[in-house]
Amino acid sequence: MFANLAPRFCQQCGAGKIEFTIPHGDDRERHVCGVCGHVHYLNPKVVVGTLPVWEDRILLCKRAIEPRYGKWTLPAGFMEEGETLEEGAARETLEEANARVTVESVYVTLSLPQISQVYMLFLARLNDLDYGAGTESLEVRLFAESEIPWDEIAFRTISFALKKYFVDRGTGVFAPVMDRIVQQGR
Amino acid sequence: MFANLAPRFCQQCGAGKIEFTIPHGDDRERHVCGVCGHVHYLNPKVVVGTLPVWEDRILLCKRAIEPRYGKWTLPAGFMEEGETLEEGAARETLEEANARVTVESVYVTLSLPQISQVYMLFLARLNDLDYGAGTESLEVRLFAESEIPWDEIAFRTISFALKKYFVDRGTGVFAPVMDRIVQQGR
Repeated sequence: MFANLAPRFCQQCGAGKIEFTIPHGDDRERHVCGVCGHVHYLNPKVVVGTLPVWEDRILLCKRAIEPRYGKWTLPAGFMEEGETLEEGAARETLEEANARVTVESVYVTLSLPQISQVYMLFLARLNDLDYGAGTESLEVRLFAESEIPWDEIAFRTISFALKKYFVDRGTGVFAPVMDRIVQQGR
Repeated sequence: MFANLAPRFCQQCGAGKIEFTIPHGDDRERHVCGVCGHVHYLNPKVVVGTLPVWEDRILLCKRAIEPRYGKWTLPAGFMEEGETLEEGAARETLEEANARVTVESVYVTLSLPQISQVYMLFLARLNDLDYGAGTESLEVRLFAESEIPWDEIAFRTISFALKKYFVDRGTGVFAPVMDRIVQQGR
């Protein structure tokens, strides 16, 4: 799912009278229950993940789920409640690639306003070569730069991070970047 | 509101049979509708704001809302759908302090796992001295370092950012930091 689904019923009282209106003291339209007044806030979601490095290679996952089934991606997914950004990035890497990493530093932060997401991808080192496909992956493998399947990368965010990584590797300076992707999709 | 409220009714079909159970293909408990199967994901929220600088002073807002009514804070609030991080930070500054800023760079990123929030505070320059209290502020004013009301700062996240700023100003190096605050509250 890319964006938040608008509520049709109130999640607190069950009434089917959701009004799209400006609550008292607010300045923008929200989904407000016409019976109990509960305001259903919709906020952007954070996608956390890693760029896992082993020597001169990067670990990619072939997606076993939609969207972009069969395309390659970095291990990443929605941040969960009760975790830090770094914990979320490591958890996604474990879930999707069965890989244990040392999360080093935030590397690529991308706002995707048209789908209300923020991507935060961290540089990470693979702790060992014990990895493999999690339930959301068809295949997991290491790619040298010359092997990256550029035409088969799942998301623009991931191509952005990979391209930056290989440029930065040439200079030896891996400065974090914050940017936006304003075209449709991620 | 600090954390996400658990749904009691399905926001898609209105049924009052929300089960806290692991959906098929997932690995953690979610709020799932026992009638239509809709999964209500709860995810962390992003708080965006600025540290607005004018010469040697910082703009703070005295809160007109709970929590921490009457305490001082940097202009910040929940990121909204359809905006970038930087746009959200500038919007909050306009709303809370009626101030127009030039957002420069991300400065302090803090995970608050116990309340499922991520704070992202940006260094910013006040464009002019035309500022004033927005509807969520009682008062807005510029503070020199010696004037900061340290015992009256609303949130630990804000004290963290302010302390770092004054340390960094001493060295002239304003490196971004990512950290976590694991104690209760923000």
